[in-house]
Amino acid sequence: MFRVGNGIDFHKLIHEPFRPLMLAGVEVPSEYALLGHSDADVLLHAVADAILGALSLGDIGQHYPDNDASIKNISSSIIVRKCLSLAKEKGWSLVNVDCTYVGDLPKINPIRAQLISSLAAILYLPEDCVSIKATTSEGMGALGRSEGVMVMATALLEKSKN
Amino acid sequence: MFRVGNGIDFHKLIHEPFRPLMLAGVEVPSEYALLGHSDADVLLHAVADAILGALSLGDIGQHYPDNDASIKNISSSIIVRKCLSLAKEKGWSLVNVDCTYVGDLPKINPIRAQLISSLAAILYLPEDCVSIKATTSEGMGALGRSEGVMVMATALLEKSKN
Amino acid sequence: MFRVGNGIDFHKLIHEPFRPLMLAGVEVPSEYALLGHSDADVLLHAVADAILGALSLGDIGQHYPDNDASIKNISSSIIVRKCLSLAKEKGWSLVNVDCTYVGDLPKINPIRAQLISSLAAILYLPEDCVSIKATTSEGMGALGRSEGVMVMATALLEKSKN
Ligand SMILES: [Zn+2]
Ligand SMILES: [Zn+2]
Ligand SMILES: [Zn+2]
Repeated sequence: MFRVGNGIDFHKLIHEPFRPLMLAGVEVPSEYALLGHSDADVLLHAVADAILGALSLGDIGQHYPDNDASIKNISSSIIVRKCLSLAKEKGWSLVNVDCTYVGDLPKINPIRAQLISSLAAILYLPEDCVSIKATTSEGMGALGRSEGVMVMATALLEKSKN
Repeated sequence: MFRVGNGIDFHKLIHEPFRPLMLAGVEVPSEYALLGHSDADVLLHAVADAILGALSLGDIGQHYPDNDASIKNISSSIIVRKCLSLAKEKGWSLVNVDCTYVGDLPKINPIRAQLISSLAAILYLPEDCVSIKATTSEGMGALGRSEGVMVMATALLEKSKN
Repeated sequence: MFRVGNGIDFHKLIHEPFRPLMLAGVEVPSEYALLGHSDADVLLHAVADAILGALSLGDIGQHYPDNDASIKNISSSIIVRKCLSLAKEKGWSLVNVDCTYVGDLPKINPIRAQLISSLAAILYLPEDCVSIKATTSEGMGALGRSEGVMVMATALLEKSKN
C-alpha cells in the first residue's frame, strides 16, 4: 500500500549576518537568514508537511503552532523526526522525498551534497531516496525580488511489511 | 498499477458577506468569498484536476469551461464526482488525496475536521485517505496580501483489482 | 518499487514575434516567446526535474548550467531524453507524468492534443500516461500580469522488472 503527500513552505529572507540560516538541518554560511518560528528551516517544514499529508495526520502548524512559546527556536529536525514517528506508529515508512527549492539565495548547488546528506540522516533514508533541487522564479514576483524562498516537497510512503 | 496526479487552483478573495465561501464542499462562515465560475471551491477544483491529471483525462477547464452559462454556480462536488466516475469507467480508484491550502483567510485549522469529513464523503474515501493542510506565503506576494488563495493537490490512483 | 518526483519551472514571457515559443517540444504559434537558456521549454524543464528528483539524480541546473555556452539554444527534448536515460541506467522507468501549466498565454486548450502527443513521443510513453493541464492565477501576481509562466510536474517511476 502506498500514499503520496505534498508540502509547501514559505519563509522571508532577511539580511542578518548573525542569525544562522538553516536548510535541511544544515547551518548554511550566509549573510542572510530565514525569518520565522522554530529555526525557520523551510525545507524541513515542507518535508514534514508532505509526510503528515500523505497519512492525513494534520499539518505542521497544527502540531507546532507558531504562537507556542515552548517551541521557539526548536530545531526542525525534531519536528521531522516526530512526523516520521507518527507515521511509523501507524505502520508506514517513507520511501522517498523530493524537494524543489525556489529562491535566489542561498544558492543550493555548491552545498547540495551536504544538504542531502543531512536530510537523509534526519529521515533515516539512503541518499538516493532524498532529493533537493533548486530553481528560481526568474526574477518574477516576491521570490524573484529575493523577499523570501519557497520549498515544495513530495513524499511517497509505503505500509511496512511486518 | 499506480498513477500520480497534481492540481493547482487559484481564486481571488473578495469582501462580500452575502456570498457563501465554499471550501471542500462546506459553506464556511466568513465575511469574504472566493470569486469565480461555478461555486469557486478552490480546494475541490485542485482535487478534480489531480484526479484528471493522473489519468490524462484533460483538465477541469476543458470539462467545465468558465464561459459555459449552464454551469454557472454549479456545486463543485458535482465536478469532482464526475471526475471520479471518469476514472472509475477506466478501471481506476482513488487511493489518497493530499491538499495544501496557501492563504491568509479563511483560517483552516478551526474547520479542518469538517472540511476533511466533507471531502472524504465527496470522494467516497475514509478520512485517513484525505488530507487538507494549510500554510501562508508569510505576507509575500499576492497571496500574502490576501488577494486570493491557492490550493495544490496531489492524488494517487490505483487500477482496481476486479 | 516506486518513486515520486516533482518539478517546478518558471520562464519570463516577452513580446517577440520572431523567436519561437517552445512548449512540450512543439513550436507554438505566438507573438510571444519564453525567455531563457536552452530553448526555454518550461514544460520539458519541469518534467526533466521531476524525473531527476524522483531518483535523486540532481537537477536540471546541475546537469545543464545556464552559463554553459555549449548548450545555448539546445532543444529541451534532448535534456529530457538524457534524464530518462540516466533513470534507465539505474533500472527505472517512467510510469506517468502530470503537468500543470499556470499562465495566461499561450492558451493550452486549443493545442493540448498536439502538446501531449509530442510529450508522449519524447518520453516514449503512451498518451494516456502523459497529462498537461492548464490554469491561471486569476490575474494575481506576476503570472497574473502575464510576466511569465510556471509549470509544475509530478512523475511516478517504477523499478523495471527484468
Ligand atoms: Zn516553515
Ligand atoms: Zn477554480
Ligand atoms: Zn527552465
